[in-house]
Amino acid sequence: MDKPYVVGMDMGGTNTVFGIVDARGNVVAKSAVKTAVHSDVHLYVEDLYNELMPLIDSVGGISKIRGIGVGAPNGNYYTGNIEYAPNLPWKGVIPFAKMLEEKFEIPAALTNDANAAAYGEMTYGAARGMKNFIMITLGTGVGSGIIIDGKVVYGHDGFAGELGHTNVVRENGRQCGCGRKGCLEAYASATGVSRTAREILTSTNKDSLLRTIPVDSITSKDVYDAAVEGDEVAQEIFNFTGKLLGEAFADFVAFSAPEAIILFGGLSKAGDLILKPVMENMEKNILNLWKGKVRVMFSELKEADAAILGASALVWEF
Amino acid sequence: MDKPYVVGMDMGGTNTVFGIVDARGNVVAKSAVKTAVHSDVHLYVEDLYNELMPLIDSVGGISKIRGIGVGAPNGNYYTGNIEYAPNLPWKGVIPFAKMLEEKFEIPAALTNDANAAAYGEMTYGAARGMKNFIMITLGTGVGSGIIIDGKVVYGHDGFAGELGHTNVVRENGRQCGCGRKGCLEAYASATGVSRTAREILTSTNKDSLLRTIPVDSITSKDVYDAAVEGDEVAQEIFNFTGKLLGEAFADFVAFSAPEAIILFGGLSKAGDLILKPVMENMEKNILNLWKGKVRVMFSELKEADAAILGASALVWEF
Repeated sequence: MDKPYVVGMDMGGTNTVFGIVDARGNVVAKSAVKTAVHSDVHLYVEDLYNELMPLIDSVGGISKIRGIGVGAPNGNYYTGNIEYAPNLPWKGVIPFAKMLEEKFEIPAALTNDANAAAYGEMTYGAARGMKNFIMITLGTGVGSGIIIDGKVVYGHDGFAGELGHTNVVRENGRQCGCGRKGCLEAYASATGVSRTAREILTSTNKDSLLRTIPVDSITSKDVYDAAVEGDEVAQEIFNFTGKLLGEAFADFVAFSAPEAIILFGGLSKAGDLILKPVMENMEKNILNLWKGKVRVMFSELKEADAAILGASALVWEF
Repeated sequence: MDKPYVVGMDMGGTNTVFGIVDARGNVVAKSAVKTAVHSDVHLYVEDLYNELMPLIDSVGGISKIRGIGVGAPNGNYYTGNIEYAPNLPWKGVIPFAKMLEEKFEIPAALTNDANAAAYGEMTYGAARGMKNFIMITLGTGVGSGIIIDGKVVYGHDGFAGELGHTNVVRENGRQCGCGRKGCLEAYASATGVSRTAREILTSTNKDSLLRTIPVDSITSKDVYDAAVEGDEVAQEIFNFTGKLLGEAFADFVAFSAPEAIILFGGLSKAGDLILKPVMENMEKNILNLWKGKVRVMFSELKEADAAILGASALVWEF
């Protein structure tokens, strides 16, 4: 292969990490720049160029690179634009793929981070060989990448796959960051888990290890640590979170009949604590024809490299 | 075109209708046989052959026919089998496409009726030119055909698109025919509408034209007729049905970002009585980015021919 490498870039609100990836999914070089410090996106691209070019040169120069794949918040695959991303310093519509192509003179593509994770899983991870699966990222928010017939579902406008914003609690649902109430994200994200902890601790007198932590600063990691110690309130929090996820998954299956649902992100580190209630409630709520047939599994990408790998996988589609 | 015609066949529990269709969607000849009377599927195919061949001969013989498309309950596009259809006289797995191919010696394909309706709408109806839409059939049940990038979504097993069996009422939901509770179908089907009528009439003392009908035999048509007369209870029934549909549609949009949702089947004849509350509640519940952007519309296929056209459209995919 005369162009044996791709670049994967994961743009977060604070940092942007990127790396050079080979066809087997090895990250052969990586680095990072700050995102938030650049109020002008052109200076940010300049900064990227200065950090990334030495890595590119270290593998033989730009002629060895097939392209750049970017996972970015509110990234639109169809247009290559970042559109009105609330957590980035640049407002409005940024033609980011085009800016990279002009700067590096190689093809660039972008998508949102959850779709990038799905590409990564399909190319290098747990979904190798699968053509129909759903990737659920359980992080600060709840993201999703839906794969049907081996392709990410973008819909008519490029923004399909917002499963974190399907409704799971119709009456008196929690306020979600999107402005609506009762979204899956308001419950099954890391912040959702903290909120559940707060609700249970302030509305009951149950004993819990979590009571040693100020109630407004309990993190999902604290809940995990307590659950591992056998804390019943912490386990109840995971059971509640898993119940809402499992019920939602049963409906997702009715839509696209995936072979598997793959969990990624902070909360998936809870292992069986989250997987057990998810499976149990998905099975309880799923149509008979799918009972026992849809797997729920964890990402198999190494966490430190997952975001870079996911974004890089976009380029192999070129 | 040396094979200018296709056959479309719609298999119902009672009757099977079929016709010869040209590339512009004209049904140039049609007929029907009874489904339910044949306890042996081979005799049913024999009967079909005897009724269909004269039509085929009338357009120039089998050499003019590209293939046969079938819409059948529990029809699996991948395998060509009808699998465990509760409303058909033949139990288990019936290799129906293969049986037709052997009998007629032309290609045959089958899918379920809702997917066939989606193909029909895309080929000849309201969805011409659309590549991303969702077809919702509001009949005895609630069926769905999901089109993404111009193709029906079948999922990993051929059974994707069971949106009538997504949950819309999580607590104390109505019993659904599928064995679970709270499915969209238990509310938004014709029988669901009858149940809503029964519930309101027996739990309140509200005046209504519907009180002249025995409460157990009120049909969705009765509710429509009363609503047109200005009956408030009947209008309340449509508003309730439309609310649940609209809320569900908001979640469907979050999945596949369709350009439109197209309504087909008996209940869609209620026109604005159902469309208005659907639109209102979809808009109220949809993510901001899609507000005002997703159309809800009615099928444009002539009702008498729609099932044949839908099934026939399958064949143009060959």
